[in-house]
Amino acid sequence: MSPAASTPAYRRLSVEERRAQLLESALSLFAHRAPEEVSLDDVAEAAGVSRPLVYRYFPGGKQQLYEAALRSAAEELRTCFDEPHEGPLLPRLSRALDRYLAFVDGHDAGFTALLQGGSVVETSRTSAIVDGVRRAAAEHILSHLEVTEPGPRLRMTVRMWITAVEAASLIWLDEDKQPPLAELRDWLVEQFVAVLSVTANRDAQTAALVGRLLSPADG
Amino acid sequence: MSPAASTPAYRRLSVEERRAQLLESALSLFAHRAPEEVSLDDVAEAAGVSRPLVYRYFPGGKQQLYEAALRSAAEELRTCFDEPHEGPLLPRLSRALDRYLAFVDGHDAGFTALLQGGSVVETSRTSAIVDGVRRAAAEHILSHLEVTEPGPRLRMTVRMWITAVEAASLIWLDEDKQPPLAELRDWLVEQFVAVLSVTANRDAQTAALVGRLLSPADG
Repeated sequence: MSPAASTPAYRRLSVEERRAQLLESALSLFAHRAPEEVSLDDVAEAAGVSRPLVYRYFPGGKQQLYEAALRSAAEELRTCFDEPHEGPLLPRLSRALDRYLAFVDGHDAGFTALLQGGSVVETSRTSAIVDGVRRAAAEHILSHLEVTEPGPRLRMTVRMWITAVEAASLIWLDEDKQPPLAELRDWLVEQFVAVLSVTANRDAQTAALVGRLLSPADG
Repeated sequence: MSPAASTPAYRRLSVEERRAQLLESALSLFAHRAPEEVSLDDVAEAAGVSRPLVYRYFPGGKQQLYEAALRSAAEELRTCFDEPHEGPLLPRLSRALDRYLAFVDGHDAGFTALLQGGSVVETSRTSAIVDGVRRAAAEHILSHLEVTEPGPRLRMTVRMWITAVEAASLIWLDEDKQPPLAELRDWLVEQFVAVLSVTANRDAQTAALVGRLLSPADG
């Protein structure tokens, strides 16, 4: 089909759409290669645009593109944690984990490349983005648990579990996504209850919380 | 006192001793500042030697020094895991954790700087050093558990716990080393048993192991 002047074969993208398209192309490249092995040429080619256009959107070059991609992934991850403060607590955690694991599943090795770091473009700024997601996850959990002043033992337990979930995601991608997503999700929820129960033996605040978590009305 | 020619005030260091001294100076600087903020001048000053001498030992400059310091810390960490294959299993884990936490305690913020990464000198090579320590820890644990062919669920559980221990160490340093080291150690051992017990419900191999771990003769 030859494109007619009045009906172009492609629609002109708005600035925001173009930016999103470039980030999406970058993310899909990061999904298969380490960020330092992805060039702006590659991104231009993947998005079907010229290299100057990529530079127009990301004048800071690769580092800026990488950080923007990381920020966009981080924002998407944060939306996974949005869960109404209603109903029993453990199913809420289960639903949030479902969304998080779907993100991991969808971004595949790109999740590893983006969040594991260890690349030459890793800086204290990119670490701060990733740490921000971890902190947001901890805050969401504590807000659902309705603990306004979490003590050090409870906070440490929640943060350790979040790190363990992150490790599980990376291992899961590495192990051909075994066990199946639903099993991994349930297993992680069970681990959450298990580590909280251990902390409960050392901390009254956590003990009260575990009681609530496991009561038929709430947990 | 004026030094006499026949009895110099300082002893000439051997190549190995000098190298170790420079690494020690570098590590103590990394303990208080991010690696990218430590210059070779600083290392020379801290070690009380000339800058050219530092360059003679580390002709690759800061990156080489950083990697050497990381490797030296990694080796020291690995020796923490050396534990005779004798006696009940949980006390063995407890003793290894004691040595590991003493290392964390002794290196303080340097542990964070070295192992957390997130610095401009972080490369895939330095990540590989840190990952090597994590893998060594997992292998040690599995060898003590006398599991020759660990299934994916058991391996994932062990690796998740190791990541959680690492997270706990970083948080512990961040929180003025609270709770006290001995309590942290016992708490981490209890978490190990707790997460294995959860996995035991989904995995026969882990179930057999937990049975052994908790039997009075072994655990």
